[in-house]
Amino acid sequence: MRIFHTDDSSFQREFTAILERSDMDIEQVTPIVMQIIDEIKKEGDDALYRHIAKFDGWEPKSSEDLRIDAALMQKAYENLDEKLRAALHLAYERIKAYHEKQMPKSWNDFEENGTILGQKVTPVERAGLYIPGGKAAYPSSLLMNAIPAIVAGVKDIVVTTPTPNNEPNELLLAACHLCGIEKVYKVGGASAVAALAYGTQTIEKVDVITGPGNIFVATAKKLVYGEVNIDMIAGPSEIGIIADESANPRFVAIDLLSQAEHDEMASSILITTSATLAKNVSSEVVKFLQNLQRREIAQKSIDERGAIIVTQCMEEAIDLMNQIAPEHLEIMTQNPFTLLPKIKNAGAIFLGDNTPEPIGDYIAGPNHTLPTGGTARFYSPLSVEHFLKKSSIISFSCQAMQDIGEAAAILAHTEGLEAHAKSIEIRLKK
Amino acid sequence: MRIFHTDDSSFQREFTAILERSDMDIEQVTPIVMQIIDEIKKEGDDALYRHIAKFDGWEPKSSEDLRIDAALMQKAYENLDEKLRAALHLAYERIKAYHEKQMPKSWNDFEENGTILGQKVTPVERAGLYIPGGKAAYPSSLLMNAIPAIVAGVKDIVVTTPTPNNEPNELLLAACHLCGIEKVYKVGGASAVAALAYGTQTIEKVDVITGPGNIFVATAKKLVYGEVNIDMIAGPSEIGIIADESANPRFVAIDLLSQAEHDEMASSILITTSATLAKNVSSEVVKFLQNLQRREIAQKSIDERGAIIVTQCMEEAIDLMNQIAPEHLEIMTQNPFTLLPKIKNAGAIFLGDNTPEPIGDYIAGPNHTLPTGGTARFYSPLSVEHFLKKSSIISFSCQAMQDIGEAAAILAHTEGLEAHAKSIEIRLKK
Repeated sequence: MRIFHTDDSSFQREFTAILERSDMDIEQVTPIVMQIIDEIKKEGDDALYRHIAKFDGWEPKSSEDLRIDAALMQKAYENLDEKLRAALHLAYERIKAYHEKQMPKSWNDFEENGTILGQKVTPVERAGLYIPGGKAAYPSSLLMNAIPAIVAGVKDIVVTTPTPNNEPNELLLAACHLCGIEKVYKVGGASAVAALAYGTQTIEKVDVITGPGNIFVATAKKLVYGEVNIDMIAGPSEIGIIADESANPRFVAIDLLSQAEHDEMASSILITTSATLAKNVSSEVVKFLQNLQRREIAQKSIDERGAIIVTQCMEEAIDLMNQIAPEHLEIMTQNPFTLLPKIKNAGAIFLGDNTPEPIGDYIAGPNHTLPTGGTARFYSPLSVEHFLKKSSIISFSCQAMQDIGEAAAILAHTEGLEAHAKSIEIRLKK
Repeated sequence: MRIFHTDDSSFQREFTAILERSDMDIEQVTPIVMQIIDEIKKEGDDALYRHIAKFDGWEPKSSEDLRIDAALMQKAYENLDEKLRAALHLAYERIKAYHEKQMPKSWNDFEENGTILGQKVTPVERAGLYIPGGKAAYPSSLLMNAIPAIVAGVKDIVVTTPTPNNEPNELLLAACHLCGIEKVYKVGGASAVAALAYGTQTIEKVDVITGPGNIFVATAKKLVYGEVNIDMIAGPSEIGIIADESANPRFVAIDLLSQAEHDEMASSILITTSATLAKNVSSEVVKFLQNLQRREIAQKSIDERGAIIVTQCMEEAIDLMNQIAPEHLEIMTQNPFTLLPKIKNAGAIFLGDNTPEPIGDYIAGPNHTLPTGGTARFYSPLSVEHFLKKSSIISFSCQAMQDIGEAAAILAHTEGLEAHAKSIEIRLKK
């Protein structure tokens, strides 16, 4: 792996490239995606059939062809290997328990003059989950998107997933059965996002769309944002690791590779105070790579987008990592918890030697749908909040109105809004 | 006002028009806005100067010309009329108190085998508030956008506001001083949004942009979404009122007009179980309109976008209102609180005779930046949450890894991700 020292003259240039790692070329695919959306809006199911024939190699003839039968999902679940089924159940339970802790409560607050102020929390009516299919069909994606919606109390959950050659992924079907999801449609890409956002004869319009996807899916989500809500616009996966001389170089190396194997575009960055660790990790990466199934992908990712940065001190390491704002952040130092207050930007933070990032992908409990490309500066992990919305509650008594109505009327007059003022003034006792 | 009965044959057509009230023509202005954004990205301040000369009628020559001097803001505050200043302070305190109650806490949760799971809450580094200027410069907009950011703990708050003829609105300046905001730039429209999203020599790039604006601002916010976060894409203001025969028709009428006076595009909808109330409200609206300062605007809004709907029963009224998903919802019935569980979609809910919507615009405490055009189906009021982001926290002990590591490795193998599995397996004791 490439090793940079922060006092190298070329460092700033290299670091800028890391910061700009995620420039997705959304603008370039926008015209294509706009046309796909337009066709779905105008033609509904007919456009869906056509797009599926073009992209997935089979041709649905009717509404029923689009939907996956519940019996198929049940069968896929029953056919699961015993150990795998137990693992999925453990994942389900742990993910559910974590997301239940996130649930906000409606609240009211009372003032003695009769004022009641509060906030009502309500689930959205209908949620659309986009789950990748084909090669990258991960049952864990279904769990991580469906469970927050279920915990939030969404009554109507719709899943869309591309199904090349009309051959659904068995694991995905099993996971749908496990989550009790009944509406699963075999459609992917920008067409699926458009169908969820605007509705077709078969697929009902939803209120929020979540889930990962390629650049066409990401672009479609951006274009329909506002018509519906979305979780985030996500790009390739990433890991940042902060380590000191106490870290185990084998652990650091395999954790970097566990991101690199996802995607040639994935970024794996180690920032360490120890030049010795840097060297040792680099050679462990070479060793692990030799026998990796997904070696080609991982090698390319590590060569082109991997980096080890050696800093002067831990403060510098943290500052650089906050600028990177990684999707996943591992901290492998003597006492990782003491660094937490200084970590500002990271999707998920994994602390200590025994917490490799993949444990969070599957089973720890927190969501694995996380902000990428530096967007952890402002986005949060997928959570129950994405499936809820809030309404403010305001109730004034006659006394409360007498107490503060005049001040409100003064402000209304100041802003030149007479009817605003009047609606208050006719309620004031003279 | 037009009165519809739900059993009229034409009702569904009229109601569909109400549901589609907000179709903002974002697509039409997109090319113009894209070019504005592009110029700001490429030329920075130079493009800002040019756009200001074109749209606001004065030409800044330097970075200092763009920024409003803190002394000016202090002076504007000191020049305030005594009563107005007191009203602003009361508004500030009440808005602050409400938003403090919204603050989520970071949390950790512990399992006996040494697992720690949690969620860290961190304010964004820098927030950009877009505040309309000129005619519609409202100090209340500044308060409602700045206070949630302040309460959330945002250190760096940047305000942009269009300043026609280089004449800043004194009230806005005073409100900035009251909120302790130091960075205020005289730039508006899509240019301001682009400057906040991408940064220029003078204006620093922010993490989140909030605030109201016209269609150019709304479109720019949509286009930069993903580069930064935004609060929502907002359209014209609206009120929905649910009332039974107990409601005071004068109160209902003036509250409808308080929205109508905002904008010809504003919608004011009453849904009532009482045909008598419908008739009385309609004539009260006519009476109030005669003497209203902003009569022309209000009249046009009421004529073209106002409606009174008479339903068979309260359940039907609520169902229709949930479909409308209004920005503001007033409930004026015998016992309004009992209807709350059934209200699914509304930005803010005002309960009872003494709670006119304008009390929420200024001084009650909850935010007045609310989802419009039916987006209350999925958007929430502006809140501290818009200025915060979360990071998941995961820490496993050696024992925790032994307990559930194997299940995670099974899932990783199932998904064909060998390095994921390996990063877990090398931590398991054989």
